[in-house]
Amino acid sequence: MARRKKVYEGKAKILYEGPEPGTLIQYFKDDGAPPVAVAPAANEGKGVLNNRLSEFFMSGLNTIGVPTHFIRRINMREQLVRMAEIIPLEVVVRNFAAGDLTNRLGIPEGTPLPRPIVEYYFKDDKLGTPLVSEEHIIAFNWANQQDLDDMIALALRVNDFLSGVMMGVGIRLADFRLELGRVWEGEFMRLIVADEISPDSCRLWDMRMTEGPDGTIPDPGPLHDVYTELARRLGVMPSNVTHTTKPSLIN
Amino acid sequence: MARRKKVYEGKAKILYEGPEPGTLIQYFKDDGAPPVAVAPAANEGKGVLNNRLSEFFMSGLNTIGVPTHFIRRINMREQLVRMAEIIPLEVVVRNFAAGDLTNRLGIPEGTPLPRPIVEYYFKDDKLGTPLVSEEHIIAFNWANQQDLDDMIALALRVNDFLSGVMMGVGIRLADFRLELGRVWEGEFMRLIVADEISPDSCRLWDMRMTEGPDGTIPDPGPLHDVYTELARRLGVMPSNVTHTTKPSLIN
Repeated sequence: MARRKKVYEGKAKILYEGPEPGTLIQYFKDDGAPPVAVAPAANEGKGVLNNRLSEFFMSGLNTIGVPTHFIRRINMREQLVRMAEIIPLEVVVRNFAAGDLTNRLGIPEGTPLPRPIVEYYFKDDKLGTPLVSEEHIIAFNWANQQDLDDMIALALRVNDFLSGVMMGVGIRLADFRLELGRVWEGEFMRLIVADEISPDSCRLWDMRMTEGPDGTIPDPGPLHDVYTELARRLGVMPSNVTHTTKPSLIN
Repeated sequence: MARRKKVYEGKAKILYEGPEPGTLIQYFKDDGAPPVAVAPAANEGKGVLNNRLSEFFMSGLNTIGVPTHFIRRINMREQLVRMAEIIPLEVVVRNFAAGDLTNRLGIPEGTPLPRPIVEYYFKDDKLGTPLVSEEHIIAFNWANQQDLDDMIALALRVNDFLSGVMMGVGIRLADFRLELGRVWEGEFMRLIVADEISPDSCRLWDMRMTEGPDGTIPDPGPLHDVYTELARRLGVMPSNVTHTTKPSLIN
């Protein structure tokens, strides 16, 4: 098989040219920091799980009529996706205060928000992916008002669906981030959900906390062993992945 | 305790006056036909499970900002709900062809629909809850255009959320029905989700079908023992309900 052309390499994924025009192959690496610090060993095999999990969420979204870039999973670490012109924004939807919202506005972590809050961050690693407002986005032409309206509508639909999936398996979706891309069908442009949906892009809290020694049940906290546990609860754990017991090579 | 005043009795539920003005107590009976015929014994204890399941879905909707009548569960069979002026329509959202859509339009059961289809049925048992169009609804003043717009928006949000919950536990939401009610906050009227959300109002197909003798996995089909199985998968099974092994009284 001829060596494929690498189009892009990020922290957690590599994109290769796809078999047909307008397609890409998205390869999931084990690298890339998860939202909550975990021991390096816990990252082993996470690419395999994220490939499965992103397939699960994206194909679910396709089913309910939220368009995504996902076409099909090819193998353990790769999926075929539709090529899209990525909007240079991370769209974050927050249901409970955490992370940047807590740091920036002093709202205690875990506070339920009065309604889901949609934020935009400019995708630029060198600048540290800074928060931007709709004014910045329109002034610098990263997206126009119609795009923003469509982005909010898509992001809120994804939030309703994903909150439901997580709630069904005892997990609270505190917040998540999306990337959106433009695709053209003839003259008609529309936005689709791109990138991935996985524990790397979602802040997940366990609502099935075990009782403390005093008999009280603590508030939802970070889901432990998040890749494996989420895949297990959703029943998408590939049967031949045993990354928790796999021996590590010594370099 | 003084005998409470019965406000309404239906096939599957009784409504009593609530402890405060504007509230009702909703009691879940074991009666009422489920969407798919089951043996009478399988209905035993279903009121207890539907009380828990409706609590699970309604409080989940409240959490994501879809307003419902649900306030809190009181005991095994009762929940406290907000009184609302019920719109005399059953709002049905269909994702896959089944039931009335199949009978009426000849679309084979299980066909994925091009998009979710919202239907309205006039709530009248004597007339057999007939399908009605928006024209009928507005002409007969059951709801106005603004109500209909709000009803569609609410119904589609519930569909996104509920599809997610079900997908998370390996179940396809083929269709479901909702009842909506009006509540007033001063001069301001808004619609809320009322009645119940349970296997009695949802058509649920199992996506975790067991392999046939020839090694093929059949298409999703009705979820067996639907009350117990749904409660088990969602982890809302009350620990003291053992209705499947409970002996029956001989009259």
